[in-house]
Amino acid sequence: MRITSETISDGIREQLFTIGDIPGVLWTPAGSSGPRPLVLIGHGGGQHKKGWEVVSRAFPYVTTCGFAVAAIDAPGTGDRPEHPEIRRLVALIQEREAAGESFWLAPEWPALNETVAAQLIPDWQTALDALQKLDHVGDSHPVGYYGLSQGGEMGIRLVAAEPRITAAVLGLVGSDWLINTAARITIPVEFVLQWDDDSNPRDSVMKLFDALGSAEKTLHANPGSHFRVPSFEIDSSIQFFARHLGSAGTASDS
Amino acid sequence: MRITSETISDGIREQLFTIGDIPGVLWTPAGSSGPRPLVLIGHGGGQHKKGWEVVSRAFPYVTTCGFAVAAIDAPGTGDRPEHPEIRRLVALIQEREAAGESFWLAPEWPALNETVAAQLIPDWQTALDALQKLDHVGDSHPVGYYGLSQGGEMGIRLVAAEPRITAAVLGLVGSDWLINTAARITIPVEFVLQWDDDSNPRDSVMKLFDALGSAEKTLHANPGSHFRVPSFEIDSSIQFFARHLGSAGTASDS
Repeated sequence: MRITSETISDGIREQLFTIGDIPGVLWTPAGSSGPRPLVLIGHGGGQHKKGWEVVSRAFPYVTTCGFAVAAIDAPGTGDRPEHPEIRRLVALIQEREAAGESFWLAPEWPALNETVAAQLIPDWQTALDALQKLDHVGDSHPVGYYGLSQGGEMGIRLVAAEPRITAAVLGLVGSDWLINTAARITIPVEFVLQWDDDSNPRDSVMKLFDALGSAEKTLHANPGSHFRVPSFEIDSSIQFFARHLGSAGTASDS
Repeated sequence: MRITSETISDGIREQLFTIGDIPGVLWTPAGSSGPRPLVLIGHGGGQHKKGWEVVSRAFPYVTTCGFAVAAIDAPGTGDRPEHPEIRRLVALIQEREAAGESFWLAPEWPALNETVAAQLIPDWQTALDALQKLDHVGDSHPVGYYGLSQGGEMGIRLVAAEPRITAAVLGLVGSDWLINTAARITIPVEFVLQWDDDSNPRDSVMKLFDALGSAEKTLHANPGSHFRVPSFEIDSSIQFFARHLGSAGTASDS
């Protein structure tokens, strides 16, 4: 891991890093040292590691809970190079959208997710290895994952594959090809649904919630379209992670 | 209002009262005076004002938020006299249940709810009038309502009828005759659903959630049967009421 920049602002230390060709960012409380819970945040489609939906979660997790929070760019986004195959698939899907078709019914949609996941899931695991070697993250505290939309699609795959992650906020995804993967998840999950999400029909999201193998899982459904998750769900995710990951310097109590 | 007993335990003052023939209980922080937000808790069917599901919510609302919390017995329960018509309807429903029928499909079920509501809704409003005259409750702070199951069935009717209530946790109810009443509700609502609730099928509960006229409404769905609402939903309701009712001595900020 190479730290490429470090800035401190509003009580938060932001470190940009690369691990091989993986660009990432780590936020921790300014001046903190020693191990603490870590939350990985997976960004949405077309966004990047410092997109608004990542930062709006990361900052309160750091300042309220004292957590470390990390995000990495998905293939073809942010500081990553162009990814020709992803670019080709996105262009085909955009053509269909322009013709009035639903992107999530496009035959290229599962292929796009497979292509992103094939690189992103191992990259997350490589990043987690490296992050846990840092003094101000460590490997003695639990790890959480937060991701909606593409971050939920990738999160279901990552959480099912990665035993170090012990609590997750997921959602805004209803991909039927994830049913069997979701069934392998057994950790506590908070699952977010937008009641009027055109691209993730209510029933498909609930089917995926239903499939989760977790004994503790809660569906949080709110009115509105895909991008209108209310801000009080950020507070709810803070409560959820505080309950399951504990806090900096203490072990989790559940 | 006549206070019939007062005890203090674990930092909570418990006052039993009667208003005419309405028996009730009020919990406030021990030694507190002055106005504060008030939460009314509606108990479940066959329960009473000091049932476990009431007390398990009331106590943390008082100790964590400094709220006043009140509950009254529904007709025919607790310290109320026998109610012959309710008794007759319950007996008929129990006969059907013994014969293997679903109580919520029994023709007596809507009649039972109508009979309870006809007395309980005006009684709640009378109790609220009296409670707001007390120095340690007052009428300068917002009022919330919490009720699941029969407490949800009655709560939807009460909240639709009572403009002093400005935030409510409701749920475990899917009565189709409440659709129009639910549509008249416009305050923020947290709506609780148990995913495997035999007596309130998922779809019927969601239909009622969908019908709510509130701009802010959140469905919280958890696995398990009717009585298995997880305890973290108590914490969630604390966050919800703290957000909407403010706290003792301060105005609400939302």
